[in-house]
Amino acid sequence: MTLTDPTQTLAALIRCPSVTPDEGGALTTLSAMLAELGFTNDRVTFSDTGTPDVDNLYSRLGTEGPHLMFAGHTDVVPVGDAGAWTQDPFAAEIINGEMYGRGAVDMKGGIACFVSALARLIARRGAPAGSVSLLITGDEEGPSINGTEKLLAHATAKGEHWDAALVGEPTNPDQLGDMIKIGRRGSLSGVLTVEGVQGHVAYPHLADNPLRGMLTLAKALMQPPLDAGNERFPPSNLEVTSIDTGNPSSNVIPARATARFNIRFNDIWTADSLAAELRGRLERAAGENGLRQGRDPVRYSIEFSDRPSPSFVTRDTALIEALSAAVLEATGRSSSLSTTGGTSDARFIKNYCPVVEFGLVGKTMHMVDERVALTDLEGLTTIYEVFLERWFDSVRTG
Amino acid sequence: MTLTDPTQTLAALIRCPSVTPDEGGALTTLSAMLAELGFTNDRVTFSDTGTPDVDNLYSRLGTEGPHLMFAGHTDVVPVGDAGAWTQDPFAAEIINGEMYGRGAVDMKGGIACFVSALARLIARRGAPAGSVSLLITGDEEGPSINGTEKLLAHATAKGEHWDAALVGEPTNPDQLGDMIKIGRRGSLSGVLTVEGVQGHVAYPHLADNPLRGMLTLAKALMQPPLDAGNERFPPSNLEVTSIDTGNPSSNVIPARATARFNIRFNDIWTADSLAAELRGRLERAAGENGLRQGRDPVRYSIEFSDRPSPSFVTRDTALIEALSAAVLEATGRSSSLSTTGGTSDARFIKNYCPVVEFGLVGKTMHMVDERVALTDLEGLTTIYEVFLERWFDSVRTG
Repeated sequence: MTLTDPTQTLAALIRCPSVTPDEGGALTTLSAMLAELGFTNDRVTFSDTGTPDVDNLYSRLGTEGPHLMFAGHTDVVPVGDAGAWTQDPFAAEIINGEMYGRGAVDMKGGIACFVSALARLIARRGAPAGSVSLLITGDEEGPSINGTEKLLAHATAKGEHWDAALVGEPTNPDQLGDMIKIGRRGSLSGVLTVEGVQGHVAYPHLADNPLRGMLTLAKALMQPPLDAGNERFPPSNLEVTSIDTGNPSSNVIPARATARFNIRFNDIWTADSLAAELRGRLERAAGENGLRQGRDPVRYSIEFSDRPSPSFVTRDTALIEALSAAVLEATGRSSSLSTTGGTSDARFIKNYCPVVEFGLVGKTMHMVDERVALTDLEGLTTIYEVFLERWFDSVRTG
Repeated sequence: MTLTDPTQTLAALIRCPSVTPDEGGALTTLSAMLAELGFTNDRVTFSDTGTPDVDNLYSRLGTEGPHLMFAGHTDVVPVGDAGAWTQDPFAAEIINGEMYGRGAVDMKGGIACFVSALARLIARRGAPAGSVSLLITGDEEGPSINGTEKLLAHATAKGEHWDAALVGEPTNPDQLGDMIKIGRRGSLSGVLTVEGVQGHVAYPHLADNPLRGMLTLAKALMQPPLDAGNERFPPSNLEVTSIDTGNPSSNVIPARATARFNIRFNDIWTADSLAAELRGRLERAAGENGLRQGRDPVRYSIEFSDRPSPSFVTRDTALIEALSAAVLEATGRSSSLSTTGGTSDARFIKNYCPVVEFGLVGKTMHMVDERVALTDLEGLTTIYEVFLERWFDSVRTG
């Protein structure tokens, strides 16, 4: 295998059927590539009650600072409807300039490009003046209990620390170079319960239908919008994800209705300030009593989840500029610096060092016929190589 | 036992533990009383798949017309929390002028008063010039499959037909004489399904949350009010009895949400005209698209139940006047002629002859310590006796 060729490094990884939580040979294959480049490998298995054991890899090249971490995962989601794939999802077939396979973009592709970028840099200039580590888990697509969070603690306990991190998840919506992710909105979930008085539908004045109050309160959660966003973040957004009554009888007015909701919120809010805003909205709406027949305020309770995740944004300009410049040089595009989208393992890494994310185009991730353009593999390899060079140069001189 | 004393006839019936669907000796006890008054009894058991067998009684005095039916049931609801009763629910104890027992008002009390009224009338004037029948089921509090509907068909098949009917259910909210029921609103049930597009809560613009559309459409079903009622009927009323999504995942926008609703409607509407009104409301609201982010109309479907029950009102003025006059004479009260409340077996009887309903005060029905004032037993017996006399007189001379 020629490590400088990302089609070869990616094909080797795709051929390992590492459907989460199985290692499937993927970490062993990756370890061998990294050993060939001079890395020292630390394979570690984590266990926890109620979740499968998962293999992880922490691999370092160099002993001195500055220290850059590349983070990712080799586990992949299941193939889904296997019969709907036009190619074997673990064969890495190349058709019309695209390589097919589960994990091609999410995110064996990102790992393969980083390995090949390192191989090219080492061949051209030697190892970076400092250290590069790969922090690779097999538990990103699963419960994320025996993965990145524990691996960071494990490495830190052994004395590791990092100056910056790059996560290789697919970040580009349409074209390579579209988007660098520099942070994430926070997430807060809650449960709203509206209490009524059960009764017969023929005697509504003797009952109190909680669904009338629920319509009023659920609307108050959603309107008006929480904010308009800012230069760092898109608007905060609340979705009611479930309303449930579970009343099987069409002639009975139910006693209670429940709504579940989730908010993705930007740095205009904390989980606490957001909870206070929602409590205020509900209190006002409960008193307005729009659809209801009685005059008493809607009786309700609200509970927020114990573990909201806060929003975060990376303010390490050297890290962001090195990556932006590399993307511009390799693709001619100025990436947007985004905080949109779902969570990633960056939420754990941000507690250790500044972190940014950049990888392939995400369009086919988790879908049948997941695939990556060979030109994108070449492009991302170039971006990572230029980034490595620029970051080490800027940190050492800056 | 002295049949002219309703405390004795009622005590005998309460002491039969006829918790639906058990006969508990109640129909046998009643048959014996009626036989003593000269009635011919026809005991019949009905069966159906998936429901318990139930005993019923059809009993007739006389062979000629005019023919008056008294309808009711001897089955009672379960005692509920037996420990919370201050008296044995099947002992017919009299405390402070009230007789305690399950079924005291719903509706062994009505049957007992009718039997005693007949006994008094026969003792005073002889049997009515015509026929009186009792149509008594043991399946009114249960599924109502093996009860009144089948008993009416059974008797009709044997050549029975009736000129008028009185149902002895408790109709008075507070005081004996408050309310005669002369009809009922119709009932129409339906299911509203709103379709969305499933997706991740972090990417709401790629999904379409059906709960946003559901809030808009459910509100359109409830507002504005369907009508203001008329001199015969209270306003029609719609209750959404259940909204369900069944989405267990707080980070997933669901694909679909369902609402169930029931309408009790007056004679301003038919089931068809009401369905058309609701379809129109939904179509307009779906286009307005209030809470939603996209511009497309809400995608939804609505299904109405196959078997709506129509509204009905009795227009037999001789029947209503005989009963109103009897109530006025016995209590000094002018009853309201009402069409409020839930369904009763009158919905089956109205297909055979004009039907009205009048019985005891319903306050304690289905509750712990169900009980009836002895003065109300005496009052209702008088009302039924005067009604019998007036009705037969008016029909024969009218």
